[in-house]
Amino acid sequence: MRENWMRCWSRSAPICSNGCLLITPGKSILFTDPRYTTQASQEVTTQVRICKGSLIDGLAPAIARAKIERLGYEPARMTCDFFESLRARLPMKASLEPVLGWVEELRMLKSAEEIARIRRSVETNSRAFEQTVAKLRPGMKEQDLAAELEYRMRRLGAEKPSFDTIVAGGLRSALPHAQPTAAPLKPGSLVVVDMGAFQDGYASDMTRMLYVGRPTPRVKRMYRAVLEAQLAAIAAVRPGAQTAAVDRVARRVLKGHGLDKAFVHSTGHGLGLEIHEPPRLGKRDKTVLREGMAITIEPGAYLEDFGGIRIEDTVVVTANGCEVLTPTSKELREV
Amino acid sequence: MRENWMRCWSRSAPICSNGCLLITPGKSILFTDPRYTTQASQEVTTQVRICKGSLIDGLAPAIARAKIERLGYEPARMTCDFFESLRARLPMKASLEPVLGWVEELRMLKSAEEIARIRRSVETNSRAFEQTVAKLRPGMKEQDLAAELEYRMRRLGAEKPSFDTIVAGGLRSALPHAQPTAAPLKPGSLVVVDMGAFQDGYASDMTRMLYVGRPTPRVKRMYRAVLEAQLAAIAAVRPGAQTAAVDRVARRVLKGHGLDKAFVHSTGHGLGLEIHEPPRLGKRDKTVLREGMAITIEPGAYLEDFGGIRIEDTVVVTANGCEVLTPTSKELREV
Repeated sequence: MRENWMRCWSRSAPICSNGCLLITPGKSILFTDPRYTTQASQEVTTQVRICKGSLIDGLAPAIARAKIERLGYEPARMTCDFFESLRARLPMKASLEPVLGWVEELRMLKSAEEIARIRRSVETNSRAFEQTVAKLRPGMKEQDLAAELEYRMRRLGAEKPSFDTIVAGGLRSALPHAQPTAAPLKPGSLVVVDMGAFQDGYASDMTRMLYVGRPTPRVKRMYRAVLEAQLAAIAAVRPGAQTAAVDRVARRVLKGHGLDKAFVHSTGHGLGLEIHEPPRLGKRDKTVLREGMAITIEPGAYLEDFGGIRIEDTVVVTANGCEVLTPTSKELREV
Repeated sequence: MRENWMRCWSRSAPICSNGCLLITPGKSILFTDPRYTTQASQEVTTQVRICKGSLIDGLAPAIARAKIERLGYEPARMTCDFFESLRARLPMKASLEPVLGWVEELRMLKSAEEIARIRRSVETNSRAFEQTVAKLRPGMKEQDLAAELEYRMRRLGAEKPSFDTIVAGGLRSALPHAQPTAAPLKPGSLVVVDMGAFQDGYASDMTRMLYVGRPTPRVKRMYRAVLEAQLAAIAAVRPGAQTAAVDRVARRVLKGHGLDKAFVHSTGHGLGLEIHEPPRLGKRDKTVLREGMAITIEPGAYLEDFGGIRIEDTVVVTANGCEVLTPTSKELREV
């Protein structure tokens, strides 16, 4: 089953919005459309076929010509209609067989060059955060703060944000995936800033908390609890540790502070060419950490009537533990 | 078959990265994960079910409880693995039936409120372009120009760019989907700027050309040819016209200038909640234009060894023709 294999992508891809790669023992062929003729000839080392209509018009004859009998496809990345169109055009003998996570498995372990790129992306991201926070004043709109953060990271060399920057103040800090609004940063409110860059194709991801004014004792307590959970989880990252075990460490600390029910997502995720890659660090995830994995550690606590706190670093698993790439200090910043 | 229907979305969705909507005659239920508990309760008018594991764990029992026998799904938006997982969990009697383009069909015709939002998005986008170009100097990096354009549009009220801003100078202007690089804008080069905003959820899309220095006669000639094609295509937009006919008009003009082979994409596309929506204005597209459609008109000509030129506006089909929403003037700008 390792003989033939195919990868498709569409609008979510960073560089090319319409492509399909056919891999056979002898050669690989990239199918794309005429918008990418020049770009493909410059950037791709495989054979390239430009398809004027559907990519399947190029793919199906190539499969027939190569006399492929078993063809792997990625069910998590292929839409049902592409699958059906392809199946309808396959030679009688050929079968399509789902293959799960081959590329993702390979991509979990980063090379030294990849880690260097992730490190640069992390550094750019943190520098953009520092430059922006240095100029931050109460009353600034969430949207404008997000715009400033993204502008800074691009001026520092990022291609773009690795996801939509989250800036959410007050009760909206309790939304783990909030979008920035026109609301001003009001005195007496928590502000979550979750941001990342793509630089040289590689992602970074960081969350830091701001407080407009002087934080209340309750805010400080909750902040310390989340920070304790985050540091404990980082300390648990090492080769051989199960991802679920790292997640459990964070959850246990938050439980000690009565905040386990307020922690509504997993402790982290891999990142690299995409902002979310395997492994996942959740309750049920059994991946064993290995040297060279790049992951986030980001426990949080969210109380609908109070606000939310999350602290997140990008770390790399090393021979003996992990290295925290994110250089940004972790105190609750008062602005 | 119109009884029951389901829509899924994942990473490409603008607001929520993980959701599935089940629509039955009696009610609608949104399935999402715990990260969106608060946001869903604030933003959604349907019932909401929060699923801790896969959305299918919530969806399958709901389908069984509602005694659904025929369930529509969108094959162009559902991945093969979601489909297989769902099929494995359906009650014996229930069948899954592909439905194509129902939502897209509805969304092709924009309401007055939607057109007002697209207009605002277009105006923001054009204002960001003017503010940025006013400060533009030769030698600026493509990346920095893109960063500036996106920063300006956000400061003017956009949520974010509606796609990755394209800034490509010199020979790279011949790549219809080029990403900005660290290359400076060099004297004697064409620069394509293709940009759009999302504002209040709605997209805009515009392409304008810059020239660093004084354009050569050949550049001017090619620019006039593309502009002539764009104006002719706009003049062909009216209710009752086929999209292919509008495309043909642009192609015919370019053919008159020997540039038909250099026009490697379609003349335009619908836009709204997404940057690419039906209808498509390509050679083989038979949609009949109707009042209230919002589309782009964007012919281009690309010569690998010379550079590319594209001119693009966002227009709305009116009772008698169309209104060009884009206010930006269409001369080749010298910087």
